[in-house]
Amino acid sequence: MKPDPSDSAHFESDIQRKLDSKTKPLGALGDLEAVAKQLCIIQNTLSPRVVNPQLVVFAGDHGIALDGVSAYPQEVTWQMVMNFVGGGAAINVFTRQHDITLSVVDAGVNYDFPADCGVINQKIARGTKSFLNEKAMSGAELDAALVAGEKLVAQLSAEDCNTIGFGEMGIGNTSSATAIISQITGIPLEDMTGRGTGLNDAQLDRKLSLLNQAFEFHGKQPDAKAVLQTFGGFEVAQMVGAILSAAAREMIILVDGFIASAAFLVAYEMNPGIRGNAIFCHQSDEGGHQTLLQHLKVSPLLNLHLRLGEGTGCALAFPLIESAVAFMNQMASFEDAGVSSE
Amino acid sequence: MKPDPSDSAHFESDIQRKLDSKTKPLGALGDLEAVAKQLCIIQNTLSPRVVNPQLVVFAGDHGIALDGVSAYPQEVTWQMVMNFVGGGAAINVFTRQHDITLSVVDAGVNYDFPADCGVINQKIARGTKSFLNEKAMSGAELDAALVAGEKLVAQLSAEDCNTIGFGEMGIGNTSSATAIISQITGIPLEDMTGRGTGLNDAQLDRKLSLLNQAFEFHGKQPDAKAVLQTFGGFEVAQMVGAILSAAAREMIILVDGFIASAAFLVAYEMNPGIRGNAIFCHQSDEGGHQTLLQHLKVSPLLNLHLRLGEGTGCALAFPLIESAVAFMNQMASFEDAGVSSE
Repeated sequence: MKPDPSDSAHFESDIQRKLDSKTKPLGALGDLEAVAKQLCIIQNTLSPRVVNPQLVVFAGDHGIALDGVSAYPQEVTWQMVMNFVGGGAAINVFTRQHDITLSVVDAGVNYDFPADCGVINQKIARGTKSFLNEKAMSGAELDAALVAGEKLVAQLSAEDCNTIGFGEMGIGNTSSATAIISQITGIPLEDMTGRGTGLNDAQLDRKLSLLNQAFEFHGKQPDAKAVLQTFGGFEVAQMVGAILSAAAREMIILVDGFIASAAFLVAYEMNPGIRGNAIFCHQSDEGGHQTLLQHLKVSPLLNLHLRLGEGTGCALAFPLIESAVAFMNQMASFEDAGVSSE
Repeated sequence: MKPDPSDSAHFESDIQRKLDSKTKPLGALGDLEAVAKQLCIIQNTLSPRVVNPQLVVFAGDHGIALDGVSAYPQEVTWQMVMNFVGGGAAINVFTRQHDITLSVVDAGVNYDFPADCGVINQKIARGTKSFLNEKAMSGAELDAALVAGEKLVAQLSAEDCNTIGFGEMGIGNTSSATAIISQITGIPLEDMTGRGTGLNDAQLDRKLSLLNQAFEFHGKQPDAKAVLQTFGGFEVAQMVGAILSAAAREMIILVDGFIASAAFLVAYEMNPGIRGNAIFCHQSDEGGHQTLLQHLKVSPLLNLHLRLGEGTGCALAFPLIESAVAFMNQMASFEDAGVSSE
């Protein structure tokens, strides 16, 4: 039964009535009930579905990485991309487990991948410039990255996918994300900057000092797009385009950890209407993530102290999305099951 | 490769070395790494497996329910049992989703089920006595319940199951669990007593008042077994026997919410060695559960504000257990993947 979209209050009470008819105490499925309700609203139905779920990992390199903000050398970006297409990374394991199709995108890695290796080539450049003393990318590069992300989602949507998660790989990209979030929210760098893949105290001090130096050089940027151009990575920018495109197509958007949430924040500033499509999958152990989630007033499904990226939080939370769909469609009502409702 | 069990420190460092060889920053898979390590230790292997996972729902009625401690009438217990065998309850949906075999046990429901309806008949009696002014069960009934739970697990273990979760159904059993936990831990009833399936303020006051009255009548019981006999339900007692049996067989034990944690607490008092086999699956929205989890110094995998029981938390957390197994066995090492490890 397809409800009349013109009457949204009536529709929401129809959803609530269906939830409350299920053989369980009112509200007893907690956050899964909230997810079920959200999926009904996104898909404008009382019987939501997850179809052909996809996960896209965008990879890109960052000029700032060469200034020493990561525990790992820059070449780990391309090496991990090869690991993704080889099937050996965490995101491969978890997407295989849950039958999620994985795509791996070179958004701007500082490496030339072999043509037939399975990486989708959307390279804007071989890494961004260091934002220490210039903008990370040109305006033309930013626009190209946004369009590339949009087009990929358009293609996946045409393959009948209605649920999509986004992951990333890019040595140095917690620095980029920290700068983006701090610029947009006004949360001080001191409260946002974390250890990324595993900085020690001295390295953490250096990262914070470099970020402060960059903020002094660039000053406060006028809007989210300018922030993205100044501090972003190509993988972050393509993810922004992808999120905007997915929301425009009324897809369910799975938001991963710290970097992906920074991309969400930029997309949200560009179009606040995307919020209803987003499911926040996990709270990262990267300190600034909790701060951002509180700022956005969202509560993610999982808190497993992950700090890996790659979209792993999306893949791990995915069965909970499926559970929300399954109970909404399959659970008996009090009436069907002959159970006393009070 | 099977490590030498005589050298547990050496074995644990072998586990850690395998975890740290995976292509991810050290510790980046957070709680999943802790689960993987625990599974390795339970199974004494570096390549743990989940085989033939099972979920057993024990159902029983409580005399105290007739004194008015629940938002639902007692007949909901048997009606929900029929819903379980009919496939329409939340636990049916989630066990189907994850290919977990579900067994439904009449441990002591106040109803005669049809012989061929699919319920496993382990009925001790048609409900316990009200613990307001007598012991809930006799010593002989308690022993019979413990043995029944043990025997069922022995049978499932013989069917090559190595991973088992336990759920429950029993109108009034949050009162029973609250009394058990408060007696054993010394946490005051006032800090433990919650709304169960949905009590209003007046009903909550009545529940607390009845529990205080029962505590005055019975006084502090000398040990966990006496507590179980005095305040327990037949479903709780069978679960205690089942947990002890599963631990003795080195199975992975999935602990569900408030009631199941009360059963775990009794089993743990009877044999503290079971702790290493238990994975706490979720934190219930029932107030006293968080208090108990803190007392046990455990941090569950999920916090989805569930308050349903039935073993639903076990089923929803199950894919995370599988993820822990999968990454341990399938992820590439830095060496295999040619990724720089620093």
